[in-house]
Amino acid sequence: MATSRIQFNAFDMSCIMHQSPGLWARPGDQSVRYKDLDYWVDLAKTLEAAKFDGLFIADVLGVYDTYQGSHDASVRRAMQVPVHDPTIQISAMAAATEKLGFGVTVSATYEQPYALARRFSTLDHLTKGRVAWNIVTSYLDGAARNLGLERQISQDERYEIAEEVVDVCYQLWESSWQDDAVVADRENQVYADPSKVHEIGHKGTYFTVPGIHLSEPSPQRTPVIWQAGTSPRGRAFAARHAEAVFTVAPTTTTLRTYVDDIRRIAGEEGRDPRSVKIFTEITIVTAATDREAHDEYQEMLSWTDYEGALAFYAGVTGIDLSQLDPHQPLEYVDTDSARFALEIFSKADPDRTWTPDEVAKFVGIGAMGPVLVGSPQTVADELERWIDDADIDGFNLAYAVTPGTFEDFAEFIVPELQRRGRYWNDYDESTTVRERLHGVGNKRVRDDHPAAVHRRRLPGAAS
Amino acid sequence: MATSRIQFNAFDMSCIMHQSPGLWARPGDQSVRYKDLDYWVDLAKTLEAAKFDGLFIADVLGVYDTYQGSHDASVRRAMQVPVHDPTIQISAMAAATEKLGFGVTVSATYEQPYALARRFSTLDHLTKGRVAWNIVTSYLDGAARNLGLERQISQDERYEIAEEVVDVCYQLWESSWQDDAVVADRENQVYADPSKVHEIGHKGTYFTVPGIHLSEPSPQRTPVIWQAGTSPRGRAFAARHAEAVFTVAPTTTTLRTYVDDIRRIAGEEGRDPRSVKIFTEITIVTAATDREAHDEYQEMLSWTDYEGALAFYAGVTGIDLSQLDPHQPLEYVDTDSARFALEIFSKADPDRTWTPDEVAKFVGIGAMGPVLVGSPQTVADELERWIDDADIDGFNLAYAVTPGTFEDFAEFIVPELQRRGRYWNDYDESTTVRERLHGVGNKRVRDDHPAAVHRRRLPGAAS
Repeated sequence: MATSRIQFNAFDMSCIMHQSPGLWARPGDQSVRYKDLDYWVDLAKTLEAAKFDGLFIADVLGVYDTYQGSHDASVRRAMQVPVHDPTIQISAMAAATEKLGFGVTVSATYEQPYALARRFSTLDHLTKGRVAWNIVTSYLDGAARNLGLERQISQDERYEIAEEVVDVCYQLWESSWQDDAVVADRENQVYADPSKVHEIGHKGTYFTVPGIHLSEPSPQRTPVIWQAGTSPRGRAFAARHAEAVFTVAPTTTTLRTYVDDIRRIAGEEGRDPRSVKIFTEITIVTAATDREAHDEYQEMLSWTDYEGALAFYAGVTGIDLSQLDPHQPLEYVDTDSARFALEIFSKADPDRTWTPDEVAKFVGIGAMGPVLVGSPQTVADELERWIDDADIDGFNLAYAVTPGTFEDFAEFIVPELQRRGRYWNDYDESTTVRERLHGVGNKRVRDDHPAAVHRRRLPGAAS
Repeated sequence: MATSRIQFNAFDMSCIMHQSPGLWARPGDQSVRYKDLDYWVDLAKTLEAAKFDGLFIADVLGVYDTYQGSHDASVRRAMQVPVHDPTIQISAMAAATEKLGFGVTVSATYEQPYALARRFSTLDHLTKGRVAWNIVTSYLDGAARNLGLERQISQDERYEIAEEVVDVCYQLWESSWQDDAVVADRENQVYADPSKVHEIGHKGTYFTVPGIHLSEPSPQRTPVIWQAGTSPRGRAFAARHAEAVFTVAPTTTTLRTYVDDIRRIAGEEGRDPRSVKIFTEITIVTAATDREAHDEYQEMLSWTDYEGALAFYAGVTGIDLSQLDPHQPLEYVDTDSARFALEIFSKADPDRTWTPDEVAKFVGIGAMGPVLVGSPQTVADELERWIDDADIDGFNLAYAVTPGTFEDFAEFIVPELQRRGRYWNDYDESTTVRERLHGVGNKRVRDDHPAAVHRRRLPGAAS
């Protein structure tokens, strides 16, 4: 792996403050343009010019309302609210680019798989195979309450539902239309051969879907599956389904433990452990010299928004620090989320005395993820260390400021990584997201992926 | 009304055969490019160059499977299957145009209103107010079976659900965020004032949505509401909610009866009957002379696809003619749909002996709608007659061939209508769909529209 190309996706969300609470107010930041199609088209062009693999768009279908037991702080600080449907801007970006991939986050908790499968097939057709589905199982109580449930169902049941949603989608994508079903025979006015279009006949616990898929086979059929599970149940889901796993970790050591675990479970599921690509979140603040980069970082920190940062932190971890003095050392409640947060903090900086104010500063740039600050050489050294020590494949690059962070990456980091043979000089012949993961020509799911089980049900299937 | 501008929308669907079964195979037709983003971007540019008001995109979330009790004929003839999600291509078309509106069909039967409202707010933001929602209550049994219901629920209950879905959406759009909630105050790092963002607290029969809307106010807030109800229950829904009603009728007399009825019910609902704009489906085959137009029409008819036409007809009416001899005169079963179909046929041409073959020819171009064939003068006379006799506001122009029908309309019909003062020479200052209906400056729902009830709940509301 030592000299392989490092893959980069930009990490954004259809909202104002994504991972850097407060920095929307910094001069030059354009995140308030999130509701302007030009922002997204410009961003896509910028990313393609820098030869990013893709743009990864996060989503929550709810608001962070744990801090002070209210959504007020999130609304005031535009902390991931307002937030738009992430599927809508994709086609405008696809029309303006040729190579950039698009990772789209959609919850598998509240969707009818029959309609959801069509939505992703539409995206895959219109982008010519440049779409990935980041599967989330919505974790916010507020989302559940607004989407027909009295309260959040258990995490285990969310994953059970997700398993069935994904399974139905796989069936629709892989086992309904044979590859040669569409003949488009103008002379005989026959578009498709109905004997090669099959009903899936699904009757499960949560869904009944007897029919055929509404879409003909798209370039990838199944969009590339992303997932970001961290809990034991989440890891099992990710190891089973994810072609790319997205995570966040404080150190390469922590990350390596996670990576080894995911790959081990994937192996137990009968998959090639190395076929599961792993990306970690990172934020980069760079300039020509270390000194300039650190100065810029300090200046950025001065924009950090205490309330927005703690509203986000509370929403993600369930820990409301609003009643504490900003400089009071923390005692943690004992929950999975809290332990996870504590682990991040203590590992990220074990010598720091963690107070609400220190948490806000930590979260203030790059949210819960590591921030690399320095010259191109310094940052490239660190990127290589993360890749090699943690045995991962790439990064999802969060922004401190947008599009500034991505522009700085293109200007400073890309040439340095290219010199080291860790970044491509141009896109290769791949046209789909999956080919980026598995090489040119590999547009369809691998034989060891659970979706392939359904492909093999098709008459005349090769394997 | 005699000299007012006639409004035109292009009528398309994210599929191959929309309203002209068989003509996809005719040389020059590009409907097979439906899965290619360029088709949609090119179409949008063509329509904007011709100064169309908008592009109206139909949808079904199911297949026509009544003919021979199977979807085989629909699949073979690409008769509205495969079919894509109509929300996905909008942003690419919006990025390529400035004035064209977009009508998007989404069923209110299977959606969570909390997520649906965000999807339309996203569309309205990204298009800068150029979006309309065509509300349908999915009528296909096959759709119901694939979307979690054992069989189709009754039409009455579909409308009950739709009433509540729409009501929740209105609340989210109109009564959650005050107009002055967003301050985007960079100096104080305050994006929105949470005291001006309200929870809607909805607890209804089908849905519980306590929270705030996830989107800040979009240019139109509520997208322009389109509806196409024909049954008594459907008419009541349309007259109550629709800002534009879409219908299809065989004659101006039939249409006038419907129009008067809709406007009467709208008046009973407390709305200005004239504020409900009415559009009827029409297909135009035109050329420089009547003779050339009729020759082209005959040549087009020769492409009509018997099986595709009858599969569509069966899906829409519930009447399967597959067991009959093509030349056997029809006896109709006694259902609402059948009566409706029979009325269309008998009124469209009372002297014709209706056989399966004649039905297929009738449906073959323009589906169940009228077809105007002739020179620009002939067609313009007819268009004016429809507008004036039926007291309607405009047309949804279906295509016989795409984009040929739209190009011919631009070349032949637009200049003739412009000479008559019935088509604008250029777009006016309106930037939103609603301003097209109600004049420049009227971006928000009218005070007499049911959505405005929720607007009035906002603190500081003007009315």
